[in-house]
Order: sequence, then structure tokens, then C-alpha cells
Amino acid sequence: MPVVEIHPSRRGMDLPSSPIRRLAALATAAEERGVHVHHLNIGQPDLAPPPEVEAALASAPQIRLAYAPSRGIASTLDAWVAYYRRYGIEVERDDLLVTAGASEALSLAFLTTCDPGDEVLVPEPYYAPYKGVVAISGVHLVPVPLGPGYAPPAAEAFRDRLTDRTRAILLCSPNNPTGTVYTRDDLLAIGGFARDHGLFLLSDETYREIVFDGPPATSALALPGLEDHVVVIDSLSKRFNMCGARIGSFVSRNQDVMRAALELAELRLSVPAIEQHAAGAALTSAPNYLTQLVDTYRSRVGTVVNGLANIPGVDVRRPDGAFYVVPTLPVDDADRFAAWMLSDFAVGGETVMVTPMSDFYGSPGLGKREVRLACIIHEADLSRVIDILRVGLDGYPGRDA
Amino acid sequence: MPVVEIHPSRRGMDLPSSPIRRLAALATAAEERGVHVHHLNIGQPDLAPPPEVEAALASAPQIRLAYAPSRGIASTLDAWVAYYRRYGIEVERDDLLVTAGASEALSLAFLTTCDPGDEVLVPEPYYAPYKGVVAISGVHLVPVPLGPGYAPPAAEAFRDRLTDRTRAILLCSPNNPTGTVYTRDDLLAIGGFARDHGLFLLSDETYREIVFDGPPATSALALPGLEDHVVVIDSLSKRFNMCGARIGSFVSRNQDVMRAALELAELRLSVPAIEQHAAGAALTSAPNYLTQLVDTYRSRVGTVVNGLANIPGVDVRRPDGAFYVVPTLPVDDADRFAAWMLSDFAVGGETVMVTPMSDFYGSPGLGKREVRLACIIHEADLSRVIDILRVGLDGYPGRDA
Repeated sequence: MPVVEIHPSRRGMDLPSSPIRRLAALATAAEERGVHVHHLNIGQPDLAPPPEVEAALASAPQIRLAYAPSRGIASTLDAWVAYYRRYGIEVERDDLLVTAGASEALSLAFLTTCDPGDEVLVPEPYYAPYKGVVAISGVHLVPVPLGPGYAPPAAEAFRDRLTDRTRAILLCSPNNPTGTVYTRDDLLAIGGFARDHGLFLLSDETYREIVFDGPPATSALALPGLEDHVVVIDSLSKRFNMCGARIGSFVSRNQDVMRAALELAELRLSVPAIEQHAAGAALTSAPNYLTQLVDTYRSRVGTVVNGLANIPGVDVRRPDGAFYVVPTLPVDDADRFAAWMLSDFAVGGETVMVTPMSDFYGSPGLGKREVRLACIIHEADLSRVIDILRVGLDGYPGRDA
Repeated sequence: MPVVEIHPSRRGMDLPSSPIRRLAALATAAEERGVHVHHLNIGQPDLAPPPEVEAALASAPQIRLAYAPSRGIASTLDAWVAYYRRYGIEVERDDLLVTAGASEALSLAFLTTCDPGDEVLVPEPYYAPYKGVVAISGVHLVPVPLGPGYAPPAAEAFRDRLTDRTRAILLCSPNNPTGTVYTRDDLLAIGGFARDHGLFLLSDETYREIVFDGPPATSALALPGLEDHVVVIDSLSKRFNMCGARIGSFVSRNQDVMRAALELAELRLSVPAIEQHAAGAALTSAPNYLTQLVDTYRSRVGTVVNGLANIPGVDVRRPDGAFYVVPTLPVDDADRFAAWMLSDFAVGGETVMVTPMSDFYGSPGLGKREVRLACIIHEADLSRVIDILRVGLDGYPGRDA
């Protein structure tokens, strides 16, 4: 009998591969050569969670490792409800599902609102991993350009890309990567468009409180008349510095959507009980934790923006929220520059790992000169990073301005 | 403007709904009436994890809540490698992925080996939640009947159902629900058939050590010549009594499959760090834990089988492994009987919740008189359960033998 070949699925082979992976190998190689790499490439903050979280984790050995309810542990659901109430948002336990981070909430959002072949409108640039999550759901992301200075798109920009397969708009506010914060008026305009066209409004609110001038970003849950349309994707990872706990939430007042989401959640049985207890502690922690967090990022982002603004040829704008800075660099190709910084450059034994922005666009060719810097290290180190980037840009052979 | 209606996805609305959900509501109602319900309906054991797990969890407050590597924490991967080596199975870190329980491993197995519309052959009855996981992957389960006494199907039974869309065979050994243990010869025959036809062999080994007469079940990883074909779905939930930790593994020596699985795993970033540390402790715990566990289930299963065999009209077979007993009852319809036990029956203020087997079949009409009992409570309570079932069967109006 001849040998019969075996192949993985096409969808497994065709997953959008991330340029970050190639850079990660270069960073590892640099570190093996003894170079100190400042990792500004991942949204993994250096800050500690609220002290209430550590206190809750002290009881981990006493928590029974049994399946939690698929929707979530009652006390954690109640902590989410109380947390939203602090922002004037009334949701019930039945409107909520505790998820394994924003990642699972996002996956549930696509699966419950879109069928294979359906389209989701998303302002670009956008969080790059959206691509993989939609690919595996068989859904297509249709990019909608932001306005100048990464301003929210007008409703017309969405209208221009509407087809009979459009099922949802996906927003992220405060935005990763651009820091764009959608005002209540922005959301009302886009939400009204969604309602008029029978679209879901999927709102990723992972960075809610991290807004530099003013109150936390308006939640899509606060919009009137959109109860059946809004699905919120939430996460404790960034605001409570619990990336590794993998706790988020999926929130909607559309009970058909919630029923489908719960049935999907039942397939994975439950989210770990220990982290759910810790999440409850974070959600009910003293509010000054978030105040200090925002102060920290405001200061860090200011340092990076001011430092970059003083480098000749660099164009940078202060973000309104989140903790990323996205400068345009005087380089031929930010992917090549990022790789060069890791493989061919060091100053005083140090270099910087940045994220090229090309992967954050759906439209080919965009973002070629932009990089994303995550302000997730101490301010003194961020100042040093600026110096390193200045020297790197001076020496980079592909400099073009 | 007219109101535009909004609907969830068809796939969200069409998820296979489980009859268990309806029974769960009846159980809750019974408990609210003050009836004590013995829950033999879910595979959630009452046993404690190895003491090493509690010791590891004592350090939970000191574990940094940062993203773990997407493949898994190095020490946890090494613990899995060492664990498999105890059974003479040599795998490398690169052949492994730490998953959020068997659920995630199963989902990764379907996504990396099958495209929408592809078919997977599965001996029936089978673990009912497979249905939802494949539905959301767009894959079709094709049931293959077990032999008499729940014996493994011969390779011909698979051949009869082979089409040009068949991509994989899914086995579970020791089996939930039937307790069937596939011998090495069974696996070699089915594995050879898979190799000859270019099929993946997806092997759910969640109950590996729980075998009553003899050593742990043979792993598909131990089969020669099937390195590119075998994907193992594993979980600590049942053998180490850590259902709520949600830690499993996905294991394959097919590097294309592993590459796709890792890319999918990167989309969810990581599995919680605290549970991974606890998992490492479980995997390296003293081996007598598993010996005692098997002794416990052998004794419990014996009590249930012997008790049921003495009830007139009940047909029962001792399972070879796992911790379920599947009797055929003298009733018109096991779904109706299970509901009646909760809503219309109690003896001494007690009743039993069993799982009707109809949902464990893919072929309509099968399993109508079978129920699954999970032996996950103390032996004295199991004896009491037998008495309750005897009285229930006597009084059930739909008795038909």
C-alpha cells in the first residue's frame, strides 16, 4: 500500500502569521549575545495588582478545585455588576459571563453574532490578534480608516463599507494601539448607525479607566436604545495588572446572544475558580488604585511622547488613553527597523524591542513607518529607551528623512 | 426609518441543546422543595487532589500574574514530559501544549486537523459535549457503533463510514461513558487503518490510569509508525481531582499540527500561571495517589454494578475503566424516567439525578433505555442510591419490563 500523506487543516495552515514571531526570535538571539533588550513590544505592565488580590490569593489552597458554574462564580458575577454600577451602568447577572480574558470574550462575540462569511467593520489600525480570532470564526474584518490624528471615523466611513454580509462594528476604546478614546457623541453616532442597519456593536473596553484627561471612557453599555445591539468585551488584565489571571467578561442585554454565549461557555465547562476569586477582589478594590494607575501611565506616556518629539524626523501625537505611543519614524520600513534594532544594533549593551504597526492594519501597505511602544516599564527606563531609539535612528541604514 | 431587526448568528442559535439543561432545572426545583438530590449526573469527583497541589497553591500570592508563555510554563511542560516518560512515552516540550483542560485541547484538535464540512469518525456512545465542540468548528461527527458489551469497533466498522471528507478518528479510552478500554491491539488495528487512509487519530486520554484490571490504558502516543497521525487530548481534571483548575494538554509529534495549535494558543495568550504551577505539582506527585484513586473507583463501581444487577429488569455490565456505570433500565424512556425521578418521586426525602444516555449517541433513537451514573460520591451514599433507584423503578409509571 502506498504511503498516504496526512495534512493539517487548511485553516490551521492559513492562520495569519504575525511578524512579531520573527522579531521574538531575534530578541532571544540578542539576549543570548548578552544584550539587554527593553521590551516595549507587549502590553504586559510591570505594575502590581491591587493588594486585595494578593490577600484573596492567600486562600487559594482552601478553594475547592471543582468546576465553577459556566457563567461564572456568583460572587464574581456580583463584583462585575457592582463594578459597572460605579459607572452608572445597570446590568444583571444574566447579562454577564465571566470569561478567560478578553480573548475568550472576543471569540464568543464573533461566534454569537456572525456566521462564516459575515463581515465586521473595524476602524484601523486595530489590535492585531483580532485577525486570528476572526479567521478561525470564518468571519472577515473590513477595515475602516481612522480620521487624521487617529480620530474616530464618522458614520459615513462605516456606511461606505456596508454590504449585505455586514453584521457588526468592532470598536476598542480607549484604543490599543492608537489611544483613541471615543466620546459619548462618537459612540451615539456609530451606535445609531449600527441600530439603523441591524448591526451589532462589539465594544472592547479593556482599557476603560486609562484616560488621561477626564473620566473613564464611555461604555457602549451606557448608550440608550442599543440594548439589543451592544456586546461588551472586558478584561481585568490591564487595569488591574492581572494579565496572567486571564479573567474578563462578556456583557450583553441581548438575551438571545447571552443564551448562545452561555451554551458555548458550557462547552469549556468553567473558568478557573482561584482566578475568579482574585477577580472579585480586584473589582471591589479601593478606587484609588485606578487613580494612581492612570497617573502612572499619564506620566510615562508624557515622558515618551516628549522624548520622541525631540528626535529629528519623528512625528508623534499624545494618545488620549491606554498606554501605547505610536510614533511615525524616519525609516524606510518599520519592520526592518525593528529587526535591525535587535539583530544589528546595541548601545552600551542595550537595545529596544518595538512593535511594527504594519500588522495592526488590514489594508496592505499601511503603517510602514509606524511602531507601537508600550509604556510598561519604569519611567527612568523609558527615558533610556528614548536615548537608545535616538542613537538607533541615527545609525539605521534605511533612514529616509 | 423602520426598526431593523437584529439576530444572533445562526450557528449560535443552532447549537445542539442538551437535555441535561432541562433536568438541571428540575433538580433545582426538587432541591427547593427540600428533596436531597444525589447528583450522579456529572463527572465531578468528591476526592481531594494530591497533597502536593495544596502545597503548591500556598505560594499563589507570590506568583506573578503575568502572561505565561502560550505553549505553557517551562516547568509545567517538563512535568508533563516526565509524567509521560513514566509510561515509556518519549515526547519533547515541542510536542506539547498546556491547555485549558481537555475542552481546549479538543477544540484545538478539531481546528488543526479538520476544515468546515470535514468528518470525524467516533465510536458511539461518546462524550456528549463533543457535539457542541465540533458544531462550532463546522465539523461533522459520524458515529460508528461499538460492538456487543460496548466492545471497541473493528476497523471494518470505520471503513464502512469512510468518505472523501473523513479526516480523523476520535477515540476516548478509558471511555466516558462506557468504560471501554482499548487494548494495544485495538489501537494498533484502528491506528493502522488511520495511517492507511491518511486520517488523524485523536485520542482523548482523560481517564488514562483509571483501569480496574491491569495497567493504565495504552496511550496512542505509544503506537509505532503513527507519529504524524496521533493527537492526544489530555486533562488532569479526573485523575488528579482538579476539574476546576482547567489544565490539560495537547500532544502531537506532527510538527505542522503543533505549529497551527501554537498559533491558535497564542490568540488566547496563555493559560493561568497559578493552575499551571499546581498542575506541575500534581504531575510529579507520589504515584501511590493514583493507585489509591483506582482502588477507590474499583470499589465504588463494584458496589454500583452489584447493586444494580440485583434489581429486577436492570441489565448492567462492569466497565473496564473510568468511573461511570451505564445500565439499561426497564423503562419506556430514560429521559422521561430521569425527569420523573426529579419532579415526581422521592423516598425518605431523597432522589437521584442520573444522565439519560440518548444525548451520548449521534444516531437518533439509540440509548433510549440507558442511563449513565457517575460514581463520584461516597460508597455508603452509592448503596443508598441503589436503594432509591430500586424504589423509583418500582413506582415509575413508564416501567416496561
